[in-house]
Amino acid sequence: MWRLYQFPLCPFSRKIRLLLGEKSVPFELVREDPWAAGDAFWDLNPAGRTPVLVDDERNLVLADSRAIAEYFEETVDKAPMINGSSINRAEIRRLVALFDENFYADVTAPLLSERMKKRIVLRQPPDSGALRQAMKLAHGHLDYMDWLIDNRPWLAGSQMSLADLAAAAQISVADYLGGIDWAGHEQTRGWYAVFKSRPSFRPLLTERMEVIQPPPHYAEIDI
Amino acid sequence: MWRLYQFPLCPFSRKIRLLLGEKSVPFELVREDPWAAGDAFWDLNPAGRTPVLVDDERNLVLADSRAIAEYFEETVDKAPMINGSSINRAEIRRLVALFDENFYADVTAPLLSERMKKRIVLRQPPDSGALRQAMKLAHGHLDYMDWLIDNRPWLAGSQMSLADLAAAAQISVADYLGGIDWAGHEQTRGWYAVFKSRPSFRPLLTERMEVIQPPPHYAEIDI
Repeated sequence: MWRLYQFPLCPFSRKIRLLLGEKSVPFELVREDPWAAGDAFWDLNPAGRTPVLVDDERNLVLADSRAIAEYFEETVDKAPMINGSSINRAEIRRLVALFDENFYADVTAPLLSERMKKRIVLRQPPDSGALRQAMKLAHGHLDYMDWLIDNRPWLAGSQMSLADLAAAAQISVADYLGGIDWAGHEQTRGWYAVFKSRPSFRPLLTERMEVIQPPPHYAEIDI
Repeated sequence: MWRLYQFPLCPFSRKIRLLLGEKSVPFELVREDPWAAGDAFWDLNPAGRTPVLVDDERNLVLADSRAIAEYFEETVDKAPMINGSSINRAEIRRLVALFDENFYADVTAPLLSERMKKRIVLRQPPDSGALRQAMKLAHGHLDYMDWLIDNRPWLAGSQMSLADLAAAAQISVADYLGGIDWAGHEQTRGWYAVFKSRPSFRPLLTERMEVIQPPPHYAEIDI
């Protein structure tokens, strides 16, 4: 069985958990906090980042969330998530990069820094200016998602894809950390409500990260 | 014909230029400086980043360097760069992410900030502490590459792959900006010398970015 090295608020690990859930690939979780990672973890992944997937029986180690997603796309037929023509697939991968890189850098990373790392590791209060800036940039990303959903059933086209999983993973962490103001984003809110009701999403919504509590609406599937 | 929006020291555009060169896909260059990008460029790519590839005849726009690489891997048979078993392909993609994300964040991005952006845009002197830190982290990455090349003909295995192109692209920008000290890295230096002699690499080595000049060894193919 696969072991997934992750921590509860890692958006890239969440993307892989959603993917493995949709594809019905069994796995168990191994907690790996990036700020406390030791040599054993760095030996598994020289990038020093979660997620990492390990299968001891086959002596396999997979690292980097996009490399992991492509691997399961190639090896598991169920629930294709990078599907369609090469153009469609390029659009899926473009959006995955937009959420993995831009949304993460603008929104999720500063929220994790201010509301998780400063609380758990550094024992400092959050910088309210940084939080305001992250929430402001989140509105810009949600505006773009609203526009996509106005034009397509799912973010990258007519079918659910890895782009939806990547976006839902980032948003779920940002929402947990109180960084998403849903007012004025009815399209994305509706898309996200559908997502929250999927079986692959339930384990994420019930999980908590120590002293950090999400807002009341976080795990409600009809909001 | 494809038009590639890029600027001379963009490592992600260089990766795509190497890939298109190896695959013999014709393209023309369009200069797009990220600090001066206007609405027209943001409309092409909401991530606001180079490279972007446009084919007007077919009304195609491709953005994100990994999405672009996967597209040409799927549509052009010549010079496969994400090849082999699913495990091999996962290893190639893991290394591409390592160079695109970790090497870039540790080495290329601070060098670009200190030696290009501060010179051309901000008109400030570079921060020598930031430069020293980038060069120190470069040694760590080159150590890892030395180790890979001790164990494999190419970075990801027995064949040249997108991992080699991604690494060469980052290193070429870092080397242009004087951030690579080759002493003690004979393996990687030998690998890079082979690379510099390839026809796909020559256009990069002869190009200059305005007032910023590379060190004398930069374009010499036997060093």
